[in-house]
Amino acid sequence: MDHQHSLMPPAAIPSTTFKIGLCQLSVTADKERNIAHARKAIEEAAAKGAKLVMLPEIWNSPYSNDSFPVYAEDIDVGGEASPSTAMLSEVARLLKITIVGGSIPERSGDRLYNTCCVFDSDGKLKAKHRKIHLFDIDIPGKITFIESKTLTAGENPTIVDTDNHWWVLAEVGRIGIGICYDIRFQELAMIYAARGLFLPSLDQAADNQLYVATCSPARDVAAGYVAWGHSTLVGPFGEVLATTEHEQDIIIAEIDYSLLELRRTNLPLTKQRRGDLYQLVDVQRMKSES
Amino acid sequence: MDHQHSLMPPAAIPSTTFKIGLCQLSVTADKERNIAHARKAIEEAAAKGAKLVMLPEIWNSPYSNDSFPVYAEDIDVGGEASPSTAMLSEVARLLKITIVGGSIPERSGDRLYNTCCVFDSDGKLKAKHRKIHLFDIDIPGKITFIESKTLTAGENPTIVDTDNHWWVLAEVGRIGIGICYDIRFQELAMIYAARGLFLPSLDQAADNQLYVATCSPARDVAAGYVAWGHSTLVGPFGEVLATTEHEQDIIIAEIDYSLLELRRTNLPLTKQRRGDLYQLVDVQRMKSES
Repeated sequence: MDHQHSLMPPAAIPSTTFKIGLCQLSVTADKERNIAHARKAIEEAAAKGAKLVMLPEIWNSPYSNDSFPVYAEDIDVGGEASPSTAMLSEVARLLKITIVGGSIPERSGDRLYNTCCVFDSDGKLKAKHRKIHLFDIDIPGKITFIESKTLTAGENPTIVDTDNHWWVLAEVGRIGIGICYDIRFQELAMIYAARGLFLPSLDQAADNQLYVATCSPARDVAAGYVAWGHSTLVGPFGEVLATTEHEQDIIIAEIDYSLLELRRTNLPLTKQRRGDLYQLVDVQRMKSES
Repeated sequence: MDHQHSLMPPAAIPSTTFKIGLCQLSVTADKERNIAHARKAIEEAAAKGAKLVMLPEIWNSPYSNDSFPVYAEDIDVGGEASPSTAMLSEVARLLKITIVGGSIPERSGDRLYNTCCVFDSDGKLKAKHRKIHLFDIDIPGKITFIESKTLTAGENPTIVDTDNHWWVLAEVGRIGIGICYDIRFQELAMIYAARGLFLPSLDQAADNQLYVATCSPARDVAAGYVAWGHSTLVGPFGEVLATTEHEQDIIIAEIDYSLLELRRTNLPLTKQRRGDLYQLVDVQRMKSES
């Protein structure tokens, strides 16, 4: 019996918590500076204990249709063709952290995407999410932005299972990825929630009993597209656990999976759904199972 | 040509707006007092210009499983068997307003429901919504309430088309009904939004580009179940248009259907949905169409 024990890691109460770091970065027109700057922020978040670090949408380039083709990288080729993801991979491996790499403009053949790369703590590319819902908005006199002018929409919801060693109840767990406008479509959050996970994007925390982490660029009123800042972590009851202002900042906050379980036990929304009245169909899952 | 005009109502620019009144009532153990009190509040809201008046959930009875059977009324029999709805019908007809009558405990055969009655401006019962999602919650040491101990769940989403005279662009329009916990299930709001309407309940205004009106009882710390108050009207961008505190109060606020159209044009979420990835199935509608 003791021999079996000797195969186990040091006996410790398995932890249900870990720290997340949200890096609200200022973004400039200087790509090299953006990469160096992001690296420094990730290192700072890791030094403060974050095991999962998130970057904002389009953190290596100005957010504009003119810039996307210029700053785009070929992620599949990697290496020098993609200095932004090469940095993320290296720093994830060196610091032994999981990185949800916000997004960068991705070039693939003659197409461009708005793409989020997730790296595990070995520096391996675990997932690539291409923004599914492009941001096409037209409010005359206020804002007009047609992302689909230059970008192609992704075709897949993305769920990442990060390293879960069997002796650790939760490393950083299962993550559903949404980029910016993706989150306005509650069906995506519902699909992710149905598969039981934590979602690094905005707004539907309480309805879906998830942790939701959002990460924005810092506000720059001189930029073509002015971001709002206010990166935020929301808990499974819709409570704001941590947030910040407009300026560049790093949020460090704790995620506790046991709280998630507790909320779902207290208020079993999933069991209480009325499948006889409505059903959300996850089309890809349905096809893959038929 | 002039003869045709003489058949028309007085020439006026069709209005896209109307006023809504939310009556945040204090509720006591005295049913007659509750009815008289609700009537007075409705009259006050109408005097302030409200064309649509809403009451809170369970406004004629304390909110408790012990009270529901005692205060329940047989709505289908009507008249003396249902003094609460008789009052709503009469006051709707006399004041020429639409009333979304919050809810009362309803007795039907040997079953009890938590039921919302909607009366049109002729005093006619237009719709009866029985709460679909019963409030069964168990947070030890904080709150335990098992509505399903005494109540039966309703079987239908409820959509009400109120009187739309052809010369009036919007009277009070099309309303989807949810009672309290119903609104925690976003599928219901999505079904209502897909049918294009205004929803008198909480929370998903921005995601579904709807007006959402919520009406709570006033807070009474001596009650078995302590309501939060804070009745609220939310606009189609998630903006709070009017709200109140804990105490008894009446909110009067304006709803503008043209704003709804504008928001949906500016940010065409419906068109931008990815039906190739997810689809919400309205089970009853599907059955009725097949």
